[in-house]
Parts: sequence; structure tokens; C-alpha cells
Amino acid sequence: MAEAKLFPTRRLRATPFTPRVEAAGVSGYTVYNHMLLPTAFNSLEEDYAHLKQYAQIWDVSAERQVQIEGPDAHKLACMISARDLRNAQPGRCYYAPILDKSGGFLNDPVALCVAPDKFWFSIADSDLLLWVAGIAEGLNLDVTVTEPDVSPLAIQGPMAEDLLVDVFGEDIRAIKFFRFATFPFMGRMLNIARSGWSKQGGFEIYLDDSSLGLALWDAITAKGAPYNLRAGCPNLIERIESGLFGYGNDMTNEDTPLEVGLEKFCALDSDAAFIGKDALLRQRDEGIKKKLMGLTIEGDAMAAVSMPLPCLKNASKVGIVTSGIYSPDLDSNIAFAMLDITVATVGTVVDVETSSGMRKAEVCEIRDFETRLKANA
Amino acid sequence: MAEAKLFPTRRLRATPFTPRVEAAGVSGYTVYNHMLLPTAFNSLEEDYAHLKQYAQIWDVSAERQVQIEGPDAHKLACMISARDLRNAQPGRCYYAPILDKSGGFLNDPVALCVAPDKFWFSIADSDLLLWVAGIAEGLNLDVTVTEPDVSPLAIQGPMAEDLLVDVFGEDIRAIKFFRFATFPFMGRMLNIARSGWSKQGGFEIYLDDSSLGLALWDAITAKGAPYNLRAGCPNLIERIESGLFGYGNDMTNEDTPLEVGLEKFCALDSDAAFIGKDALLRQRDEGIKKKLMGLTIEGDAMAAVSMPLPCLKNASKVGIVTSGIYSPDLDSNIAFAMLDITVATVGTVVDVETSSGMRKAEVCEIRDFETRLKANA
Repeated sequence: MAEAKLFPTRRLRATPFTPRVEAAGVSGYTVYNHMLLPTAFNSLEEDYAHLKQYAQIWDVSAERQVQIEGPDAHKLACMISARDLRNAQPGRCYYAPILDKSGGFLNDPVALCVAPDKFWFSIADSDLLLWVAGIAEGLNLDVTVTEPDVSPLAIQGPMAEDLLVDVFGEDIRAIKFFRFATFPFMGRMLNIARSGWSKQGGFEIYLDDSSLGLALWDAITAKGAPYNLRAGCPNLIERIESGLFGYGNDMTNEDTPLEVGLEKFCALDSDAAFIGKDALLRQRDEGIKKKLMGLTIEGDAMAAVSMPLPCLKNASKVGIVTSGIYSPDLDSNIAFAMLDITVATVGTVVDVETSSGMRKAEVCEIRDFETRLKANA
Repeated sequence: MAEAKLFPTRRLRATPFTPRVEAAGVSGYTVYNHMLLPTAFNSLEEDYAHLKQYAQIWDVSAERQVQIEGPDAHKLACMISARDLRNAQPGRCYYAPILDKSGGFLNDPVALCVAPDKFWFSIADSDLLLWVAGIAEGLNLDVTVTEPDVSPLAIQGPMAEDLLVDVFGEDIRAIKFFRFATFPFMGRMLNIARSGWSKQGGFEIYLDDSSLGLALWDAITAKGAPYNLRAGCPNLIERIESGLFGYGNDMTNEDTPLEVGLEKFCALDSDAAFIGKDALLRQRDEGIKKKLMGLTIEGDAMAAVSMPLPCLKNASKVGIVTSGIYSPDLDSNIAFAMLDITVATVGTVVDVETSSGMRKAEVCEIRDFETRLKANA
């Protein structure tokens, strides 16, 4: 894509933190849930190296919340979630694929059980609210479905915990992975979860009052110096290394959890009922025809893949690269690719059609990137 | 907003025409329905002056279609549309507000009746498919709801008709406003409507085969020289002058058709049943508390408004500017503003808080911009 700028209008919503993000020198944005989401500050590679060593503050307001509240909230949450939420406990987070009746992804949020009759679905980039509200309307359920004034601010990186202890106290350390607890800030009680869009450790603070955005940012950055804190954002290199998928990039409504390797988050072997279950069971019986795999692509360091790159075997198309970039720590181009099942096996070599010509690529498990990083460490 | 670039990934979908758009020198993009939509080529002002005189070719693929097909398609279309579609005729387009049960906008598409049991909703920027599919799921309707491979290409400007006659023949002239007819192109029959995102006249070609995108672009541009054809896009200046609203900018789900002045497109005085009708009738009885109005803002030429600007009266907030920019032809800063009903009267003066300080602004009817342009002409 050319060097076109993003043309700002009200429709591409700013966040409670945007003035600080701009002051910190954001150099790239994406649009995510109709909202600005930073993609780079210094450079992808510098941001990545820093994230792995220190602490970063991330404006992830674009992870909007779909709030389902009311007497039928639990029923509706269970109906839309492939993850079994029947015994969901307040204070816990659940990665929850949301599927259409064909089993295709509509979103892959993290569901927070805020109270027995109140759920937040912290969403990827699609208007999940419309799906949930549409079903509630069709079934005439007793719920309200809203997008509350909640804007997550993430602190990520190996020093995130020590930093947040300085801000919120020692109780931060007691939060287990994918759990959340409440902490006071300027008269409000904020949900803080041990979670985030990286595998470098960290937290997400669910700010529920936009007017406190700058104060929260400033309260954290004021304590940041010992941790070399700087502004950052979800990092494409780290995301691929860590095997974290992006909805709209690595899977769409054309793909099912079985094809993406997320079957373990789907309650297929219980009596949980959810939209898409029949289709998934049928697909499990029949066998999948494509699968998301890792790829290492040979040749010079590749820039971020900006559109699906065709994968070929004997000159026939056998899939697409969905995300890809050069990893400095692995000294290799790494990618995710949705591949025909015939070539979705470790060690298979395919051809990838890049802007700089055809390149050989070898299929691997997605988790192999992390395994190799650990072996290098 | 700073000069941050748009970071391209597969999730921000390219279109069948993107290579030609890039070659034509697109200088700004927005993201609309998860897809690239050009916002400028040379400059907003040059694009605008050209559009009013010649013909432009616009990649508006981001106007995605939500296709509702099947035995219950007509029933579902009527249920979701505030516009009365009970007697919808094939070959006609209908501007159709889509509302939630509170009467707030979820989208404001143009509905095309493709066949008695097949509708396309050519959508603004929200995932309307999820709302429609959610209702169909909840009510167990016999329909399929899909996003087909349809990418509109618009030809706009006063010379659009002559150009398309050269490409598709004299029958183009017979298409009435907001009607469509089919024309052959490379073995396909394409719907072509007299419609578009400007008031300079023109057509939208609903290309239903992505693989023909470049061929269609080239077939039209090959005939473009006599009409000084160049690549363009919906133009912010022209849009405001013409009183065309943008969903997400000028109205959101917080606003109803009565507040935006679109009551005439809502079947309130018939026995049509649609989602949101009760709320609108209640609001009509009680009276609206805010209204979208025009504003002329004094002082130097303003750049495009990129986030809501507060409007004040006696230092109290009475609304926001939703869209605004300098109009060369009116030699004035023009804007839309959602204003408290107490100040939503022609001639009222309010203060607008801009990045360059407080400015006086005078309230007008939205149609006044067009009226003044015609008076100048």
C-alpha cells in the first residue's frame, strides 16, 4: 500500500488517552472497532525490543466492551459463546469464540464475568454488539446490551507488575492470569485483569470513566522511570512469535475454531448449547479441509504483510499468508497461513508469492516460534 | 491528530480497484466497513472543484452489501427498516434508516430491491450484517444473510452520464434517480443505479465479481478523456454543502431520525411495523431535545473537523460540531452540529471551541448551504 495518510473524522473515534498517545509520538494507527489503535511508535523493531525488556503503556481503548446485563444476561452469554460459560465466576476472564450458525468466527472476545447477571465481552474488530442485540431482539430477552464508557489501558512487558505495584499497591501481585480484581482510582473502582495482547506479561485496566483518562495515564507514567516505561502498542512481530491471532487477519467468518486450532475453547463434548455447535460437530466428524499453520519464509527480511499472499504448491494455490513479518530474535520471516489440509503438515515446503517475487516457505506448528525463542534464550 | 500513517494489514481490506486507486495517487484513506475508502487524491479543494465540473471514478467498494435472501427476506427487510418497504419494487433503491428499539441509528443504508425475495442493503460504516443475522437467528427466519462479492464503483460529476453512455450505451440515460437497471459487462449483468455519495449527479455500478475490478476500471477510464475523468472519492466539502450525513460522524446510535431531520423516511403514520417505531412515536409526542443543524463558523478557513468540537452558549455546553470544513464556493466555514433544542433555531449564535480558539457560529438550516450555492450560481 502506498504511503497514504489516515484521514481523521469523528467516525474514527479518538480515545480518552489519544492526547498522550499523540504526545508520545505515535507513528502509525489502525482503525479497530471504529476507534484509533496505535500500531507503532519508534519502529516495529524498536518497539518490540523494548517491550521484551521493560514496561510499556498501551492505549487499547479500541478493545470495546459489549455489556450484557439483566435477568437473561447469563442465558444470552451462554448462547453466543462457544466457550462454556455456564459456570462462569465473577472475577474471571474467558477467551470465548463467538460463532455464526455455520461455525464461522464473528469475533473472539475475552469475556469478563463482572457479576452473575452482567458480562463484558472485550471484543476484537467487529460490531459484536449488533449480533448480541439482534438475537436479544429476536428472542425478546430481558437484557440490555450496551457499549459502556470503558476504555482498557494496558501495561505490558516484564516490568509491568512492579510498575503497577508502585501505582496500585502490593495486591496487584495477587491477581492470577486471566483473573481481575478492583482497585480504587480517583474515587472509582477499576477492574484490573492480568491479561493483554502480548505474551510478555502484564495487565489491562478497564477505565470506566473517560474523563479520568489523562489522569490515569499520568499517574502511571509518573512512576515509570525505574521501569524505562514508554508508550507502546500491540506489536506485530511479538504477536506472531507468540502465536496470538488477530480476528480479520488470521481468521474471518469463513474460518472455524477447528480450522484455527482453537477447538479447546469450544464446549463440543459437553451438553452446553451454543450457536455454531452443530456445524462444528459436523465439521469434526467430516474432518477439516484447511488449517492455520506457521510458516518460515526464506530470503531477506520482509516488511509486514499487508494483504493475503497466495501460497502455491506445484503452481496451484493452496492457501494464503494471513499475517507475516521478519522476527529479529528468530532471524527469520515468520507468518501464519491458512493452508489446504493437504499441505498443512510440518516440514512441507510451499511457494509464497510476495511483492518481491516467489519465495520458498516451510510449514511449522504455530507454537514452534515460541519454542525456538525459548531454546535460543 | 498527528500525521500518523495508516498501518496496512489484511484486516483493513483492499478492494478490487485498490491497485488503480494507488496508481492514481491516493493521498488519504479512511477505514469503512473494515475496508479502505479513499478520502483525497490531490487535495480536498482540488478534488472538489474537479468533481463539480467533470467526471470522477470512485472506489466505493466499502459500501458493502448485506444481502437478505429467501422466503422470509421481505418480512425481515420490513422489520428492520424504518422506511416502508412493504411495496418495494425490483429495480428501485430506498434510503432506509435502520434503528434499534430505542430509535437510535444502527446504520442508514440504501436498500435495493433486487428481486421480491432478495434485498441488498448498501451500508454505511457498521456491521449491519450482524444485526440482521442476529434477528434472523433469534426468530428462526428462513433467510440467508451474507456479504456477497459486490463492490460498488461510482462515476460522479456532471459529465458522469455522458461518460457511461460511451461505455454502456444510450440506455444509461433512461435510468431514473434511485432506480437501477442491468447492463452487460464481460459476460456478467451488472446493476447500475443512478445514485451516489454526492449531489453532482452520477451512477453506482455494483460489480459482482472482484476478478473483473481492474477490467471495469480500465474500460471506463479508457473512455474518460473527453470528460476530464480522474480518480476521486466522496468529498467532505461537497458532502457538507449538499447536506449529506455520514453515519458515525453526524449521527450515531445516540441519535434518532427525528433528531437528524430524517423523519420523512420513517413510516410513522402508516401501519408498517418496524423496530424502533414505538420509540419514535413516543419521541414525536414528547418532542425532541436536540437537533442536527447547519452552522457557519466565522474566522479563517478551517481544516476538516477531526473530532467533535464543543458548542457553547453563555459558557454552557449546548452541543457538538459533528462535521465541518471550509467551503471555497461559499467562502465560509460550514458545519453540521447536534444542538440542544434551545439553540437549534436559525440565527442563533453559539461559540465553538476549535483548536485555534473560540469562534462565533450562526445556526442555519442544513439545506441553506445548497440554497446559497444556487443563489451564487
